[in-house]
Amino acid sequence: MRIAVLGAGAMGSLYGGYLSRKHDVILVDVNQAVIDAINANGVTIHEPDGSVTVCHPLGAVSTAGMAPVDLIIVFVKAMFSKSALSNNRGLIGPDTCIMTLQNGSGHEDTLTQFVDRAHVVIGTTQHNSAVVGMGEIRHGGSGITHVGCIEGDVGRLQYIADAFCESGLEADCSADVQKLIWGKMFTNVSASVLTGVLQVPLGFIAADANAWALCETLVREAVAVAAGEGLEFDAEEKVAEVRRVCENSPAGITSICADLSKGRRTEVDTISGSVVRASRRNGVPAPTHAAMVALVHAMEAKASQS
Amino acid sequence: MRIAVLGAGAMGSLYGGYLSRKHDVILVDVNQAVIDAINANGVTIHEPDGSVTVCHPLGAVSTAGMAPVDLIIVFVKAMFSKSALSNNRGLIGPDTCIMTLQNGSGHEDTLTQFVDRAHVVIGTTQHNSAVVGMGEIRHGGSGITHVGCIEGDVGRLQYIADAFCESGLEADCSADVQKLIWGKMFTNVSASVLTGVLQVPLGFIAADANAWALCETLVREAVAVAAGEGLEFDAEEKVAEVRRVCENSPAGITSICADLSKGRRTEVDTISGSVVRASRRNGVPAPTHAAMVALVHAMEAKASQS
Repeated sequence: MRIAVLGAGAMGSLYGGYLSRKHDVILVDVNQAVIDAINANGVTIHEPDGSVTVCHPLGAVSTAGMAPVDLIIVFVKAMFSKSALSNNRGLIGPDTCIMTLQNGSGHEDTLTQFVDRAHVVIGTTQHNSAVVGMGEIRHGGSGITHVGCIEGDVGRLQYIADAFCESGLEADCSADVQKLIWGKMFTNVSASVLTGVLQVPLGFIAADANAWALCETLVREAVAVAAGEGLEFDAEEKVAEVRRVCENSPAGITSICADLSKGRRTEVDTISGSVVRASRRNGVPAPTHAAMVALVHAMEAKASQS
Repeated sequence: MRIAVLGAGAMGSLYGGYLSRKHDVILVDVNQAVIDAINANGVTIHEPDGSVTVCHPLGAVSTAGMAPVDLIIVFVKAMFSKSALSNNRGLIGPDTCIMTLQNGSGHEDTLTQFVDRAHVVIGTTQHNSAVVGMGEIRHGGSGITHVGCIEGDVGRLQYIADAFCESGLEADCSADVQKLIWGKMFTNVSASVLTGVLQVPLGFIAADANAWALCETLVREAVAVAAGEGLEFDAEEKVAEVRRVCENSPAGITSICADLSKGRRTEVDTISGSVVRASRRNGVPAPTHAAMVALVHAMEAKASQS
């Protein structure tokens, strides 16, 4: 397969690197220095077991003039998905599928601006990874990549799951993928967003009675909105799960907390924002999520002014 | 009349000072240095017209052994109302009225822990004042003090309004006092609380689209809750009024913003918190106010830890 991975960050480099072992992969990023490092030395992956994998996708800052690919995997930060796809529009042909494994939900709303619903592939990943240098990442943990779609029978995407598997990325097709996507989102839309607004580590959310009450409200609102989407979750179970995440990583600094403290734009629109959009679609109220989205955007604006 | 004023801050010193010109006033505060200054030099009031008024209420740190008074006016910060009344319980006799002119609403819930509903006096003040030294205040502006009650006919409190008037504090009795109290509250429960959560001046709330959208939501929720209390306000009018306040004082730092930035406890429970309590009472939802109360308390806790 010819595959383009947009974004040579931690996850894009991981998938781009692995897939390049069996497929023709272009790893695209706007950062020339990172692309130069990848083209000179490959992608260096420090595996959890201490071993090192070096892979050689083709790094590219521009894809102008390149032929359409079979699959584009979007791994830029959510707020850059649209510009990344626009800038690499030449890769999109009539048979190109565009896939998202990004955090949050509702990314299909961006992808359908570039291909029809039948060519949108959504999914979740259990891998995690961190950038440790130019073209160099630490692979923190592995798991199944679930591949799904928003229209038609998911079985037709088995060739994508197969392509992942033969490259060493365990994958399957899942008819339930929206439920998997939402299932991963509860901590992000509750505890994580609160760590951003309050600028505290995860442990504070479980330890402070007021923060925890608000966190619970966010989980319960999101469970109700998910139910409105036809995705049933047990609220008590999700509340307990979020609490465990906070208690197990008390010093954990979430990416939304770090983004806000460093004055960077956050991914709140595809995290809490996707709950708000689903709420508007299905009429189940999510006022607390709407408040969090507004607060985070106001904090971004405040930071950009100073 | 024998009157005790609890709290020798800006407003307590103003009312205690003025009332002492015609009545027997005890001005009570936990700060020994302030009380010593008042007993040595009186309360010095710098009037808006440049003149200076010096008044001589009796300053007291403790009221142990003193006889009950006719009227207690509570002018401590709201979260200290209960402890101030407990510490000066000897001033409360069977005929003592306890009055609140504090910001926010719902203060009667504290006062009824000390006297029956018939002896609770609520109201609003249009005066403002700032502490400029020990026993020294700047009187910023004047206006009518509206006196009201939560049970029975307000006409019976005319003697209190009269006592104020003869001391130079314009006052009347108002049957509509809850509406006046709520009417003053909309800016506090919307723009002010947001300046606290976001740690920004008032102008930011009107200038930033996300902050303003959230501010509007807070105003509209509060108008709906007020309607549930039988107090009708025009939402568009209140939204416009709050916007004007923000635009007219763009650099204004609210007390809740200052309290949070200095790690002090805020009065959020009698501001936004009173909207939440009214909401629980009358069933009109106020989820955004509930979120703000939780965030402010979490911020207080965070500050107290660092």
